[in-house]
This record gives sequence, C-alpha cells and structure tokens, in this order.
Amino acid sequence: MKTINIIGAGNVVYHLLQALNKSSHYKIQNVAVRSLEKALDFIPEKLTVSHINQLQKADITLISVTDNAIEQVSGAIPYNDSLVVHTSGTTALEVLNDKNRKGVFYPLQTFSKNKEIDFKEVPLCLEAENEVDLNELKNLAKELSDNVFEISSEQRKSLHVAAVFVSNFTNHLYSIGNEICNENNISFNILKPLIKETADKINYLSPKEGQTGPAVRFDTKTTNAHEDFLKNETHKEIYKLITQSIQKNV
Amino acid sequence: MKTINIIGAGNVVYHLLQALNKSSHYKIQNVAVRSLEKALDFIPEKLTVSHINQLQKADITLISVTDNAIEQVSGAIPYNDSLVVHTSGTTALEVLNDKNRKGVFYPLQTFSKNKEIDFKEVPLCLEAENEVDLNELKNLAKELSDNVFEISSEQRKSLHVAAVFVSNFTNHLYSIGNEICNENNISFNILKPLIKETADKINYLSPKEGQTGPAVRFDTKTTNAHEDFLKNETHKEIYKLITQSIQKNV
Repeated sequence: MKTINIIGAGNVVYHLLQALNKSSHYKIQNVAVRSLEKALDFIPEKLTVSHINQLQKADITLISVTDNAIEQVSGAIPYNDSLVVHTSGTTALEVLNDKNRKGVFYPLQTFSKNKEIDFKEVPLCLEAENEVDLNELKNLAKELSDNVFEISSEQRKSLHVAAVFVSNFTNHLYSIGNEICNENNISFNILKPLIKETADKINYLSPKEGQTGPAVRFDTKTTNAHEDFLKNETHKEIYKLITQSIQKNV
Repeated sequence: MKTINIIGAGNVVYHLLQALNKSSHYKIQNVAVRSLEKALDFIPEKLTVSHINQLQKADITLISVTDNAIEQVSGAIPYNDSLVVHTSGTTALEVLNDKNRKGVFYPLQTFSKNKEIDFKEVPLCLEAENEVDLNELKNLAKELSDNVFEISSEQRKSLHVAAVFVSNFTNHLYSIGNEICNENNISFNILKPLIKETADKINYLSPKEGQTGPAVRFDTKTTNAHEDFLKNETHKEIYKLITQSIQKNV
C-alpha cells in the first residue's frame, strides 16, 4: 500500500479525498491544513495536521494550495528525496523545491464543494522529471480516473488558458443569461435544455461547424436590436466583441 | 386530424418535421420551400410545393424563414382566417400579416442538421392573440414537447438575447478553446469533460455560486500570465473583458 500526503483543503482536495478513499492501493497518511475548522467538515480528524512540519514522509505528496504559495509550501516539507507534486494548471514544475523529486498532477475540471462529480471522468494531466516518477504518477492517476494524459509544462499552460475560456468564461455567460432572465421575470430553467444541448453538440460537430445564431448569419438587424436591448454596459461590450469574433472566424 | 402547413426548409424545419412525423393528431399537409434540391434531402417530395401561393388552407401554418422575410411571406399566404405563426425568437407577433390570426411558436434550442436532438426536451415558447388560438398552439406544442411556456413578445425578446449569451457565445468560447488546443498540439477531447461538467453544474448551483477560476479569485498573477500568453488580439480582448465582468459580479 502506497502512502499519500496532501497539503491543502480546497475544492480539489475535497474531491480528491473522496476518490482516494475508494482506492485499495493508496492510503492517505496525512492532510496538512491551515484552518482545522474549515477542514474538519470533510477530512477525518485523525488524518489532519495543522503544520507542514508535522508531516511524516510519504511515497507521494500532493500540494493543492493557491498558486502563489506552492514554492514556499514545497520548501517547508520536512523530508527529502520523495515525490512531491502540485495540482496547479498554471504553475511550472520547476517552482517546486529541489529537495524532493518534482511532478505535476493537474486535474482538469471545475470543482465546487456542493456539486458531486464522477472522478473517473476527470482528465488528469501528469508531468515528472523522469520515467520512474512519471510511472508512479500514472499508476496513481489510473487508479482514480479513466482519462490520464502526459502533458508538458508548456502544454499545460495553454490548456489552462483554454480551460478558462470553455469553463470559467462560459459559466459567466450562463450568469449573464440568468441575470437577463431575472430582470424579465423568466425562469432560468427555460434556458437549461439549450445549455445542455450546446455542450453536448461538440461531441458530434466541431464548435466551428456547430455555430448558430444571428452573429454567424451576419443578421445585423437582430444583433443591433440585441445591443440596443442591453442596458448593462459591460454586457453590451461583451455582446459586441464576441459577435465580431464569431464573424471573423467564419 | 389537424393539418399543418410549413413554410421554410432550415434547421428548425428539419427537426420539427421529425417530431411532427411521430404525431397521430397532426398531419403535415404541405411544405413550401424556395429550393427544391436543398429540401428534398429531408422533405418527402409529395409534400413540397415551390411557391407559397400553391399552399391549400391548413389549421395551422408555421413560418420558419429568416426574420427579415417573415412579414412578406405571411402576406403571400393565399388564404385567410386561419392560424399563422412564426418560429422566430426576435420577431414580434404583430409583424405577421393581418389577413390571418397571428401567433408565435418559438423553439428555444440550437438546431444543426447533423446533430439529432430529443424534441420532447425543447422548450416551446408560445404566444397568440386570443385564448382559443393559444390553446390550439398549446395542444400542438404538448404533442411535440414536455416543455411548453406561454411567453409574451417582450419576454421572448429578452429570452433570445439570453439564449445568444448562453448558447451562441458559449459555443464560440468552445471554438476559441479548440483553436488554442490545435495551436499547441493538444486534443480538444481533453476539455470535453470540463465542458460537460460546467454545463451540468448549473442544475445544482446558480452560475454565480458555481463560478471558479483565476478571475473570481482575483489571481492577478495568473490572469496577467494568460493575457501575455494570448497572441490573438481578439482573444486577448475577450479574456480581459470577461475577467473584468466576472470581477464586477463578485
């Protein structure tokens, strides 16, 4: 049985713990957390430690903290020569402290504590300094997910930008749609089948092939009417800019 | 058995015909199309007519043509005093010609010919001038879908703007994600579970509650790095604008 230490108590850790609990080949040794009150909602008390220097050496240490803290946290680990990986989409492998072997274990998914997910579907993007460590990470990743990829730091950086567009920004467009519905006494539920179908369609057509709507038809009468309708200046600007971008892409 | 005439041969008609074919209470009488070659891919030849003035009176006439043509097409219908409806999200009911009773039958979905959909899930937004006609449309709509709504012209206008944000614009963000993947030799497939989960999450959390990513965390280091990464000026502008919009919304 391989042992895993985890540092952090955010949304990624919440979902990672649930996936790891199902494993018969990996055991969570300790979870180092800054705030015990916050963590005890979902981390068994016997596993938690409140200082990184209380951690005992484990086969793999997963750092899942805010990007800016990864360097410092990896330097505070009280053991050497083990495999230490971070879970960040944007941080280079090199940022990790030299005293341990370095790797990346980046789950490409949007995690919220109040929404369960099927971890088996989460793409796990792996990187390590050598084949042995990469295989160690692959074994762990395959235990948790059916979607395992080897991705370089450079590729991961571009993937993270792409993920911001297709997920964080898309979600914000849902938010704008929700706001427009609220302002006009329409239930947001009426848009849900459309949102579902738009996401599903990319499994059958490329997004470019599947583009519909007034912008791609250069239906200026409609796009002008929509711009006039929008009173929120930011929403109006977004409308104009994405309409232009769609039309450049035809 | 009620009779239906259809004018148009676009994506909406393609999916509407399939749904109507399953009905035992409604019969398609004729479909008026501009281009026979285009239409005969999916409309039985015996149903098609190539001029609107060849249409025989039916119980309901559905006009599904480009928005700018609705007024003229409804004026060219060679019969009076029947129920004539259009399927447009943006066009007011009043635009239809006075010689027939007016209504709207707006399916709020993204339709592409090469992607099958479950019409039972398509929200159908109805409007009519009186209760009798509204009930006539409700009966038809309920035969085809489980999601039937009465929506005024004003509400429909706002709904259509919201739909552009959550569907057409979202799809364009998928397209940008696809482009970034292609430029960096990464399969777009790796983003698909993320896209699916982002769309699914709104069934459990409001989009505002479910917002994740560097913008909502005010993680300037990451958002600056992403802006630097983007070489396409339009993509860079979209990145900046939506990041600002997310941060205003917190």
